Amino acid sequence: SAPPGVLPRCCRVPLRGGAARPPPGLPLAPCRAFSNNKIQVELDQSSGIATMKFKSPPVNSLSLDFLTEFCISLEKLENDRACRGVIFTSAVPKIFSSGLDIMEMYGKSTEHYAEFWRAVQEMWLRLYGSNMVTVAAVNGSSPAGGCLIALSCDYRIMVENPKFSIGLNEAQLGIVAPFWFKDTFVNTVGHRVAERSLQLGSLHPAPEALKFGLVDELVPEEKLHEKALAVMAQWLALPDHARQLTKSMMRKAVLDRLVAHREEDIQNFISFISKESIQKSLRMYMEMLKKKKS
Amino acid sequence: SAPPGVLPRCCRVPLRGGAARPPPGLPLAPCRAFSNNKIQVELDQSSGIATMKFKSPPVNSLSLDFLTEFCISLEKLENDRACRGVIFTSAVPKIFSSGLDIMEMYGKSTEHYAEFWRAVQEMWLRLYGSNMVTVAAVNGSSPAGGCLIALSCDYRIMVENPKFSIGLNEAQLGIVAPFWFKDTFVNTVGHRVAERSLQLGSLHPAPEALKFGLVDELVPEEKLHEKALAVMAQWLALPDHARQLTKSMMRKAVLDRLVAHREEDIQNFISFISKESIQKSLRMYMEMLKKKKS
Amino acid sequence: SAPPGVLPRCCRVPLRGGAARPPPGLPLAPCRAFSNNKIQVELDQSSGIATMKFKSPPVNSLSLDFLTEFCISLEKLENDRACRGVIFTSAVPKIFSSGLDIMEMYGKSTEHYAEFWRAVQEMWLRLYGSNMVTVAAVNGSSPAGGCLIALSCDYRIMVENPKFSIGLNEAQLGIVAPFWFKDTFVNTVGHRVAERSLQLGSLHPAPEALKFGLVDELVPEEKLHEKALAVMAQWLALPDHARQLTKSMMRKAVLDRLVAHREEDIQNFISFISKESIQKSLRMYMEMLKKKKS
Repeated sequence: SAPPGVLPRCCRVPLRGGAARPPPGLPLAPCRAFSNNKIQVELDQSSGIATMKFKSPPVNSLSLDFLTEFCISLEKLENDRACRGVIFTSAVPKIFSSGLDIMEMYGKSTEHYAEFWRAVQEMWLRLYGSNMVTVAAVNGSSPAGGCLIALSCDYRIMVENPKFSIGLNEAQLGIVAPFWFKDTFVNTVGHRVAERSLQLGSLHPAPEALKFGLVDELVPEEKLHEKALAVMAQWLALPDHARQLTKSMMRKAVLDRLVAHREEDIQNFISFISKESIQKSLRMYMEMLKKKKS
Repeated sequence: SAPPGVLPRCCRVPLRGGAARPPPGLPLAPCRAFSNNKIQVELDQSSGIATMKFKSPPVNSLSLDFLTEFCISLEKLENDRACRGVIFTSAVPKIFSSGLDIMEMYGKSTEHYAEFWRAVQEMWLRLYGSNMVTVAAVNGSSPAGGCLIALSCDYRIMVENPKFSIGLNEAQLGIVAPFWFKDTFVNTVGHRVAERSLQLGSLHPAPEALKFGLVDELVPEEKLHEKALAVMAQWLALPDHARQLTKSMMRKAVLDRLVAHREEDIQNFISFISKESIQKSLRMYMEMLKKKKS
Repeated sequence: SAPPGVLPRCCRVPLRGGAARPPPGLPLAPCRAFSNNKIQVELDQSSGIATMKFKSPPVNSLSLDFLTEFCISLEKLENDRACRGVIFTSAVPKIFSSGLDIMEMYGKSTEHYAEFWRAVQEMWLRLYGSNMVTVAAVNGSSPAGGCLIALSCDYRIMVENPKFSIGLNEAQLGIVAPFWFKDTFVNTVGHRVAERSLQLGSLHPAPEALKFGLVDELVPEEKLHEKALAVMAQWLALPDHARQLTKSMMRKAVLDRLVAHREEDIQNFISFISKESIQKSLRMYMEMLKKKKS
C-alpha cells in the first residue's frame, strides 16, 4: 500500500481512467505513454518498467506544478499492476533537476507556502516509500531537491562527467536542509560524510559522489539507459512482496518521523521563508541568476 | 551476566555437572571436550579459548535440535570461568551453516513454530550478547541464519575462496529477514549497504564480503585456525570486565529491542509461516532441493 | 546560542571584560591574545580565526584546572562576535593531549570527583555543540580524552607521523569510555569501526586513523598550521547561521542525550571511580608511569 502521506489538494484528482489496462480481447500494447506538461511517462508493459523523464526547461526546477504532476504520475504507476519499477531521468541536457523552484518561495501568501511545502513533503513520502523499484539515472547536475529525488531512489547511476555535480547545497544559499532531507542523506552516506557535506553545502562532482557513496555507479552518458535497465532487471528478479517489506523495514523509521511532524514542518517552513532577511536573500539570488542569463 | 533471554523449554536442563572444573589435587587437563550430536566443543584450558565446530551434515542447518545444543553449549562455556573466548567454525566441507532448517517451518503445529522461533531468538540473544570474545572462522558458505551467526560474533575471518559466499538472502526466497537480523546487519555494514543487500537478498562472494565490511579479513583455508587464534589472543589481551561493558554498551540497544518485542516477533513468525502461500513456496523449494540432490 | 550545559562552579566567573571589543575610534588590533596557565589563546581579528594552544607539560593532561580554563576560553570566544572559528593544537612536542588527568581521579573526595566529571562533561557539551567552526590540528598523540577533543571538532587534520596515534583506549586501562564518548565516536567512524576499536582500546597510528575516518586528513608537520587555516577558510566561506543550524541538526540528538542523563552520568562516574579495585589499578598505573620517567 502507498505511504501514509495525503496528496495536496491540487493532486486530489481521479487517478486511473478506464485506459489504465487494455480492454480484454485486444492485444497488449508493448508500450503505453502519457505526457503532461512537465514530465513524460512511458511504461513498457512487457518489462513492467516505466520511465519518468523530466522535461521542464530550463532546469527542471521543482515548482508546485511539477511536484503535483510528479505525485500524480507516481501514484498512477504505483496503482498500475503492470508497473513494477520506475527509472527517473531528465530530458533537459546537463541538468537532472535544479531542486525547489525559488519562484514558489518568493513574495507569495502563507497559504501558497503551505501548499507548496506540503507538495514537497508528498513527493518525498511517495518516492522514498514507493513499493516499486526506483532507479535514478542522473544525467546532469542535481543540487538540493534534485539530489533528494536521487537519494530517495533504490539505486543511483550517474553520468561519469566531472562537470555534473550532486549534493544538498542548501547551506551555500543560507538555508538549512529539512530534517528529512538530512535523514535520507545519512541513510545513504552515513553520519560523518553527511555532517561535513551538509555543513559545507557541498556539490560533489560525479567521481567524488561515487567515492562518498552518494551515487552507486558511474557510466558514460551513452550507456546510461542500458545500465539503468540492467540494474532494474536485477532488482525485479526478486519477488515483489519480500522486497517491498524489506524496503519498508529499512525506511519506515525515517518516513514515520516526517509523518509525525508534518504540520510542524510546514509551519517551520512558512515562518522561515516569510522572514524579511530570507526574502531579501532570495530576491538577490534571483537577480544574480537573471544577470547571469543576460 | 548473561543476556536477558530465557532458554526455550527444551534447553532448560542442568548446565554444569561436577566435571566442569577438574577436581582439586588432579593435574589440569590441557584440553577438555564434550560432544553431542551436532556441535563439537573443545576448550583449551591453558588459553581459555573454546572451539565450537558445527558437524551437522549435509549443511549444518539450524534445526531445533541444533539450536538447542548451540544454546546449551554456549551457556556452559559462558558459565565456565576457564573459558574467555569461543571460535565458531564448521566440520562440514564448503559450508559454514546454511541457516534455518526449512523442515522446522513446514507442515508443523503452531506450538512447534513458536518453540522453533523462540530457539532462534535465544541463539541470537546469547551469541550477540555474549560476554566472551566470539570469533567466526567462516570456512564455507554462510547464507541467512548462517550469516547471522557470523554477524553476531566480535570478529569474522573468512576463507578467501570466491566460491564461498555470505549474506542475508531471505528476500531471494520470498521471505523477509526479521528486524533483529536487519539491526545486526546495519550495525556491521551500515544502513546503505544493508538496504541494498537485504532488498536484493545478495549472497556476497568472500572478496565482496570483505569489501562491504561483512567480514573483517580473508585468509587461505590452511591459515584459518591459526589466524583465529591470533585474533583471539589480541582480544583476550584486554581486561575482560572493561571489554564486556564496552561490548554491552555497543549492542544493548539492539538486544533490548528484541527482548521488548519478543512475543510479538514470535506471533509474527507464526502467522507469516502458517500462510498457505508461504507453505506452498517452501514445499516447492524443498522439492527443488530434492531433485538437485538426485 | 550556547549548548545547554551549565558551567561547573569553578567556571562561573565574569566572562567578558570591556576589552572584548576595541573601543570605537581606535584602530583594530590585528591580533589579540590572552594567556592563562595552561592554554594560550590567540584571536586574529581580521580573519576571525582563534587558536587555542595547549601548553600544559608534560602531556597536556585534562586536569580540572585545564578543563576550567578550556571552558572559559571557549565561552569567551563563543561570545566574541569577532571570532568565527577556533583551531585546537598543542604547544607540547609529540603530544596533543593525553586525556583525563589521573591525579583528579585518585584518592579524592566524592565532591571532587563530581566537580571534575561535571567539568569533563561541560568541555564536551561546549565543544561538540559550539557554534564556531572547530578544527583540530593534531600534532602529537591523542589518546582517550585527547581523542575526544579531536572527535568533537568539525574537522581533524593530523601530522602524518606514524609514531603519533589517536583513539579511545579506555578499555586498555580497564575502564569504559562514557556513552557520550562512544556516541561521538560512532557519529564519526560508524558503528562497526567504533565497536571494534572501543573493545580493543585501539590507539591508531596516523595512517590507520585516516583509513578508519578517525581523522580527515594527514599533512607533514610543517604544513599543519597552513592547512588548518585553509580548511578554516573553506568552512568560514559559508553563511554562519545556516552552517550553525545544520551543525546543530546533526549533533543535537547526541548532545541532548547527555544533558538528559547528566546527573546520572556523574553518579555513575563517582561510584565507578570510588571502587577499591579501580583505585588500586590507578595507583599501580601511576607507579608504573613514575618508574618509566626515572
